[in-house]
Amino acid sequence: MTADVQLLGISNAIVDVLAHVDDELIEKIGVVPGSMTLIDEARAHEIYEMMGPATEMSGGSVANTIAGFANLGGRAAYIGRVRNDQLGEIFNHDMRSLGVDIRLKPAPDGAPTARSHIMITADGQRTMNTYLGACTELGVADITPDTFGKPKAVLIEGYVWDIAEGPALARKAMELAAKNRAKVALSLSDSFCVERHKESYEEAIRSGVDIIVADEDEINVLMGTDSFDETLDAIGNFDNLFVMTRSEHGSVIFHRGELHVQQATPVEKVIDTTGAGDAYCAGFLYGWVHDRSLAECARAGTLCATAVIQQVGARIEKGVLD
Amino acid sequence: MTADVQLLGISNAIVDVLAHVDDELIEKIGVVPGSMTLIDEARAHEIYEMMGPATEMSGGSVANTIAGFANLGGRAAYIGRVRNDQLGEIFNHDMRSLGVDIRLKPAPDGAPTARSHIMITADGQRTMNTYLGACTELGVADITPDTFGKPKAVLIEGYVWDIAEGPALARKAMELAAKNRAKVALSLSDSFCVERHKESYEEAIRSGVDIIVADEDEINVLMGTDSFDETLDAIGNFDNLFVMTRSEHGSVIFHRGELHVQQATPVEKVIDTTGAGDAYCAGFLYGWVHDRSLAECARAGTLCATAVIQQVGARIEKGVLD
Repeated sequence: MTADVQLLGISNAIVDVLAHVDDELIEKIGVVPGSMTLIDEARAHEIYEMMGPATEMSGGSVANTIAGFANLGGRAAYIGRVRNDQLGEIFNHDMRSLGVDIRLKPAPDGAPTARSHIMITADGQRTMNTYLGACTELGVADITPDTFGKPKAVLIEGYVWDIAEGPALARKAMELAAKNRAKVALSLSDSFCVERHKESYEEAIRSGVDIIVADEDEINVLMGTDSFDETLDAIGNFDNLFVMTRSEHGSVIFHRGELHVQQATPVEKVIDTTGAGDAYCAGFLYGWVHDRSLAECARAGTLCATAVIQQVGARIEKGVLD
Repeated sequence: MTADVQLLGISNAIVDVLAHVDDELIEKIGVVPGSMTLIDEARAHEIYEMMGPATEMSGGSVANTIAGFANLGGRAAYIGRVRNDQLGEIFNHDMRSLGVDIRLKPAPDGAPTARSHIMITADGQRTMNTYLGACTELGVADITPDTFGKPKAVLIEGYVWDIAEGPALARKAMELAAKNRAKVALSLSDSFCVERHKESYEEAIRSGVDIIVADEDEINVLMGTDSFDETLDAIGNFDNLFVMTRSEHGSVIFHRGELHVQQATPVEKVIDTTGAGDAYCAGFLYGWVHDRSLAECARAGTLCATAVIQQVGARIEKGVLD
């Protein structure tokens, strides 16, 4: 059976609305600095009104990874729900222009395309308020043998569990993956998201997920530990491949007793850490679908993350691994 | 009579779609590198398809000036036509969030909000393909005593002459300005635009325009001269105030025999020259509405332009003149 693409992403399709703000605005909005909060349309409008002039660009965690993977030269496809509005057009354009095969048509009606209002404070921290809009309408019916195809691997975003049919559609994707011998990677998205869906993730990890991609906070919450050392003990009980990023402490890859520690590359100046994890994931999986060793995959991930933190914006430019 | 705002802008309301491209793409599209070409919706779609992932932000020459003027602390209003679509919402949000009084409601139907596909090549040059969309529907009926109000000055964009009712609506704005003792500034936009509408501009300058804002190319075309020296002779025959920017050669202000030459401020690294002229205009007019001397206005303009060329994007950040 020939894989049609190397990597299929399933995630929330989001356009980022970025603006520099004062700390007072974060306080006024009443959210935790650096957090991601889900909001409804009315609240999105309210928050947008409080923000200054903004810049718009396509975003979304796994969507960033898929875009990066394609920009590295990988063959990628994407399942995510946008409306047939201007932001949806922008999102799909940005994916397609990198050669990503968009598997769903924009919805002709329903909620508008999702946007994440990203407030950047002077310390470079980003506080996100996300209106999921059309994403919430992604459903089990969108995951079919046709839209799924025959990828070498599928990468599912943890945030997908936040939408009504999310757990069910993830389950269906895992069934299709099993049928097509595609590997399943789960990106844990956010530690609060792990708290919200811990049991459902645990079940998925026991029954259908091959690769878990997480940062230190996320994997600690999933394992119910207080430190990364305890986590390293806990994951010894699993057969899955763990890909764990630790910011300036580099990354750790663990698979059935095999442990790789990859140092972070020192950089002169960190411009913007957004998307570092997504970029790492793109580089790692790019190595992985090309059957590289885990150590080589970790190095590719590090190269991509290092490139992204030295630029504004979350998406990888071409040629980072050249 | 009290002025309700200090500056009213009348111009094309445009969202910029910016992407880095190879020189080959400019060649393939078949336009002159660095030029601005007006395109229709089908062509806009075609060009967008050829561009890579892009970033969207509010733009438009005089709209940039108005946004900058407001960000400096000036009281500003704006007349420009957007559709009630997502790009229109973005445009109006970005203006309103700076305190700009938006005088027209978004159109409930008709062409979509304008966008300019801006292709940035490795040398930093920008080639623009602009689909005017909703802007073309700006009409004489939009310029009323209500929407015009009682500004201290009105700034009209040369590009407005490219739209069907443009010359007529500019004329109506000049009549309302005369009635309300508002000064009229005309920003010449682009040398090709001056070629297209030379006679109509000449008539406006003889009969209703007080201030002409132009770069060297634009003013040379308007005066029909081959060099800036000849232009300096030619403008001696006019009573208007001439505000002329000359990139690294600074700026020249001329008014009834009074000449001010303002040197450019040397900068370590020019990041992006887009909007330098618009920012200069914002600073100059900010000084001017505060009754500063022409020399002080020129210094304020230079400060703003210097700030803008050291950042990505055309719009002035707060506090540049503090």
